[in-house]
Amino acid sequence: MDQMMGTIEAVKGTPAIAQFRFRSSSRWTGGAREQTSFKSFYGAGQEDTTRKETFVLDGDEPAILLGTNEAPNAVEATLHALSSCMTVAFIYPAAAQGIKVESLEYTMEGDVDLHGFLNLSDKIRPGLQNIRVKAHVKADAPREKIQELLDYATKTSPVMDTIRNPVSVTVELAD
Amino acid sequence: MDQMMGTIEAVKGTPAIAQFRFRSSSRWTGGAREQTSFKSFYGAGQEDTTRKETFVLDGDEPAILLGTNEAPNAVEATLHALSSCMTVAFIYPAAAQGIKVESLEYTMEGDVDLHGFLNLSDKIRPGLQNIRVKAHVKADAPREKIQELLDYATKTSPVMDTIRNPVSVTVELAD
Repeated sequence: MDQMMGTIEAVKGTPAIAQFRFRSSSRWTGGAREQTSFKSFYGAGQEDTTRKETFVLDGDEPAILLGTNEAPNAVEATLHALSSCMTVAFIYPAAAQGIKVESLEYTMEGDVDLHGFLNLSDKIRPGLQNIRVKAHVKADAPREKIQELLDYATKTSPVMDTIRNPVSVTVELAD
Repeated sequence: MDQMMGTIEAVKGTPAIAQFRFRSSSRWTGGAREQTSFKSFYGAGQEDTTRKETFVLDGDEPAILLGTNEAPNAVEATLHALSSCMTVAFIYPAAAQGIKVESLEYTMEGDVDLHGFLNLSDKIRPGLQNIRVKAHVKADAPREKIQELLDYATKTSPVMDTIRNPVSVTVELAD
């Protein structure tokens, strides 16, 4: 809670420290499998030096999507990113307001029609057609307060905004 | 390659089998940490029964974002989802065209300004302001062909479309 307030005051005083740049490096490992690695990032005016290990997330596809079913697929990984983000976006403001959260779970569902991925239709988008999020919260607060926190998380979550609204992505082939 | 062609022919014959529904279930585990689990999904006209184990992806934040630095954060997880998707969206069509890919790597960078997340500005979006993707490909094909495959992947990747274009997300508080 103190840290959260400290961060907010610091950003108010020096807006540039709010700029973060995250990075990833992925490698195809055969079939539908890949590994994405993370270590460095830039934030609060400097390159991070606190991470001692490289984090790795694995991707694959189930057999019906021609994979070997060794890891969640990319659409599922998107739901993970949203879950992770909505968790922080709920928990931090709750802590800042002194609300004791006992448990927080999100169940999510997303629909995809493969016509887009298979390039069989220009009318059907390749991406998620919709996502349904259900929040399960036990906290020391009335339901209206919990709803308010959920609305706040939905508004401020970076990944929620990334999914709901357009993001510019450039794709370049390296030399 | 045969499987890919088989899938395409099957979808042409029975469009409804192209409908997939993916699901996740996440649990806050203290601090900024959460775990997202995946097992069931619906696709090709039925509930999947091939997955024997539940997959888990972990999320956390670095110390500067008030976490304990035990896993990649949500924005990094988004880059993983995009990497995983762009890998499959490149490799499958390459295989279908008989192109031998020796290696495929993506490096990505994405910028976030925390003013949105901290609710300190309505003018600065909470989400990714942009993503820069660089593809590193070694394949038995001329550069123009590799560029063509990369363009195709960029067009057909479900997660690329999910990030570039708006997706409807509903958020509900469970009883």
